[in-house]
Amino acid sequence: MAPAMPKLIIRVELSDTSAIGPGKVRLLEHIDETGSISAAGRAMNMSYRRAWLLVDDLNQHFKEPVTMAGSGGKGGGGAKLTSFGRTLVRQYRAIEAQALAVSSRHLATLEAAMKSRPSRATRRRSPTE
Amino acid sequence: MAPAMPKLIIRVELSDTSAIGPGKVRLLEHIDETGSISAAGRAMNMSYRRAWLLVDDLNQHFKEPVTMAGSGGKGGGGAKLTSFGRTLVRQYRAIEAQALAVSSRHLATLEAAMKSRPSRATRRRSPTE
Repeated sequence: MAPAMPKLIIRVELSDTSAIGPGKVRLLEHIDETGSISAAGRAMNMSYRRAWLLVDDLNQHFKEPVTMAGSGGKGGGGAKLTSFGRTLVRQYRAIEAQALAVSSRHLATLEAAMKSRPSRATRRRSPTE
Repeated sequence: MAPAMPKLIIRVELSDTSAIGPGKVRLLEHIDETGSISAAGRAMNMSYRRAWLLVDDLNQHFKEPVTMAGSGGKGGGGAKLTSFGRTLVRQYRAIEAQALAVSSRHLATLEAAMKSRPSRATRRRSPTE
């Protein structure tokens, strides 16, 4: 169950049908950690095909690819982020952090206006809050 | 066709299944302008039922409703934003404007990294950009 605090989600639309959001960025981060598109997909409960399509979608929009073939290793294959792929992740996380920093006061105002969550009856706010 | 400039989209998640994003905020703004949920829905090519469900979803999450019955007029009925509904729109637009202000440099960097749009062959960037 998510906490009651409203959460800011950043998406950057690249075209009418495509965007970079938390999902694709997390996928790139998993590729960076695991060295594999399929392992990154598994970490996010998605098929290799879906993970590949998300990576390919990014590659369609940028001059440089976001991943490249890994250096082999056990079983060969694998994938790693390109320098541009890392830059893309960094840019997104920077936008996200800065947007969160400037909006935290507004998010707190929204939170104060929200109902207590029905499923958390023991966690009610005081009536004066 | 959307321009090549990447566009920042802000969503505020209120729960696991619900968020405030550009669509709901635009709907509230249309209600404010038209004095009617159905007219606001029509302006966004959505059914009255869908527009009502989106408004109801917001009302489920906040202590105060975002709309109230209008004062009547021709045919009676109608709806208008409550003071809280207006506050909600204002908060969202403020978050959006501030997030855009702090991220414009990052968005410009992303734009420079994007491919020219295939459908706009006459609008290519110079190779040195």
